[in-house]
Amino acid sequence: MRTALADERILMKHGAGGRAMRRLIEDVMMAGLGDGLKPGDIGLRAMDDGAAIRVGDKWLVMTTDSHVVHPIFFPGGDIGRLAVSGTVNDLSMMGATEVLGLTCAVVLEEGFSRDNLIRVQMSMRDTALEAGAPIVTGDTKVMGRGELDGIILNTTGVAITDHIVTDAGLQPGDMLIVTGTIGDHGFAVMTARHNLALEGHLVSDVAPLNGMVRSVLMVAGRDVVAMKDPTRGGVSSAVHEMAAKARVTIVLDEPSIPVSDEARAASELLGIDPLNVANEGKAVIGVRPWAAKAVLAALHAHPLGQRAAIVGQCVDGGASVVLDTGVGRRLLVEPEGEPLPRIC
Amino acid sequence: MRTALADERILMKHGAGGRAMRRLIEDVMMAGLGDGLKPGDIGLRAMDDGAAIRVGDKWLVMTTDSHVVHPIFFPGGDIGRLAVSGTVNDLSMMGATEVLGLTCAVVLEEGFSRDNLIRVQMSMRDTALEAGAPIVTGDTKVMGRGELDGIILNTTGVAITDHIVTDAGLQPGDMLIVTGTIGDHGFAVMTARHNLALEGHLVSDVAPLNGMVRSVLMVAGRDVVAMKDPTRGGVSSAVHEMAAKARVTIVLDEPSIPVSDEARAASELLGIDPLNVANEGKAVIGVRPWAAKAVLAALHAHPLGQRAAIVGQCVDGGASVVLDTGVGRRLLVEPEGEPLPRIC
Repeated sequence: MRTALADERILMKHGAGGRAMRRLIEDVMMAGLGDGLKPGDIGLRAMDDGAAIRVGDKWLVMTTDSHVVHPIFFPGGDIGRLAVSGTVNDLSMMGATEVLGLTCAVVLEEGFSRDNLIRVQMSMRDTALEAGAPIVTGDTKVMGRGELDGIILNTTGVAITDHIVTDAGLQPGDMLIVTGTIGDHGFAVMTARHNLALEGHLVSDVAPLNGMVRSVLMVAGRDVVAMKDPTRGGVSSAVHEMAAKARVTIVLDEPSIPVSDEARAASELLGIDPLNVANEGKAVIGVRPWAAKAVLAALHAHPLGQRAAIVGQCVDGGASVVLDTGVGRRLLVEPEGEPLPRIC
Repeated sequence: MRTALADERILMKHGAGGRAMRRLIEDVMMAGLGDGLKPGDIGLRAMDDGAAIRVGDKWLVMTTDSHVVHPIFFPGGDIGRLAVSGTVNDLSMMGATEVLGLTCAVVLEEGFSRDNLIRVQMSMRDTALEAGAPIVTGDTKVMGRGELDGIILNTTGVAITDHIVTDAGLQPGDMLIVTGTIGDHGFAVMTARHNLALEGHLVSDVAPLNGMVRSVLMVAGRDVVAMKDPTRGGVSSAVHEMAAKARVTIVLDEPSIPVSDEARAASELLGIDPLNVANEGKAVIGVRPWAAKAVLAALHAHPLGQRAAIVGQCVDGGASVVLDTGVGRRLLVEPEGEPLPRIC
């Protein structure tokens, strides 16, 4: 079923980070958007985490994200920290860890609490400081009561780098590393939204990753061949996209994929696979096999990479993802999208 | 009355481009946002149309805007054209007319018409082509039915330039030029929203101004000392901000300010001064007195500047705006903000 034929109206799944969203973007968002970029530049058509434009002998990297997370305050973070981290992370996934500037555009519902707005702004400031990413300009709009549910933030970021890492660079033999436990953000927001009582303390992993990525690039340089942050649609969506773009098969070793006890409990309670759940402080990193150990060591030495693990390897074959469960292998189906709306 | 003391909730006027909004930005948005910029860079604190960051011997200019206009299709334009033009114009007002890249982030309400989304995207494409400004990356989010009224667009733009024009460069003696008739955008949206029947054909002026600004900078170079696009809050807000930043008094010659017959009729019907009404294809340009004629000629030679006029001059004195009505002079009071919400 093609979206182009079947859908006359926008559905929630069109924003869920999976196949439905990708089809909408391909069919509508990019239709006729002649990039106007020079050959070699990376624009909309690459559907990467951002765009990369040649400026002299450097790359200017740009990325944008709107944030509609609900609730706006959740265990481990809030919409402000999410916005800054999300944008810094998209830049980092392109190999651009030195952020020149972030923009912050706020749309508010009439009647929104001024105190909550201050909390969000303070959180943006703190996260921007943590990432060394200056917020340089902004915009404020207000919509009437009932015209918007609370607040939307848009953050757009710009960075300059010598070398671009895409999400399409995998080759057979390359190893896949996940930088820590998966699913924490999505499950934390779900439990906050639905007031689920769980054992332990489930918190979002939301964090700016540019420092961690910098240390990875420092030890492995161009042996880092692909990066992606597994946000909406989780690790499953991310690896499916990486496999499809590079036309390799990714074999994931399920027992090696780190999942916290709390996320595991939430996963079982809700019947949702952590592989499909959003992360906001994790990266999937593809590296040449000989560099895997050094990258893993660099990650383990970083506060945000303590539980990093090698979780898979690329093999020849046609753009698919195979899950090795330890007792057998099965094809991992790409999720239609993130199971929960407004996760980021 | 200070916003900081009196307001516990966000009000419509906080998004209306005038004094109330400026106070909110100063008190909340910028509170503690330590820019992290280098001395000389232009960041949030300048409250200009965008930010300017030194990169080598050039300036990287960044600007962001969210667009919430209602209705999304109006005479002369739509939200897509508005978004691209608004961002291109903010860059142009900083003197940066060669756009490296625009981002486009879309937030949609579940149930939004796919056909309307296509119309908006096509309009963005056309306007981006007109401006020679490539749309390089994007983002799509969907909110539930009733959580958002239709669609919000965010466009962020980046440009590189050798020379920055701020909105703060006026000196006594400088001339002020408006590049055409004022109020057309705001009145067009108002009449569309309220189905007002008016004589003639009132259309928004929404257009990307970078080509026109380029031709102005070509003839006058550094004699162009200040630019601002009079969007929310209209020409009145713009000149008040320019006067305040430069600590000059601006004397506006009311009879010289171009107003179309249609906007005049709307103004009289609605009892709203065109000076307070939003424009989306006009600039207020401050020039050294000896350059005024050449700038005016360059504007008249451009399709978007046919009705440009010299409308005022700066004199010594304390940051105010005086309106010379032809029969007398009075202090022009800064509007609290745009009279109509969701004008852009």
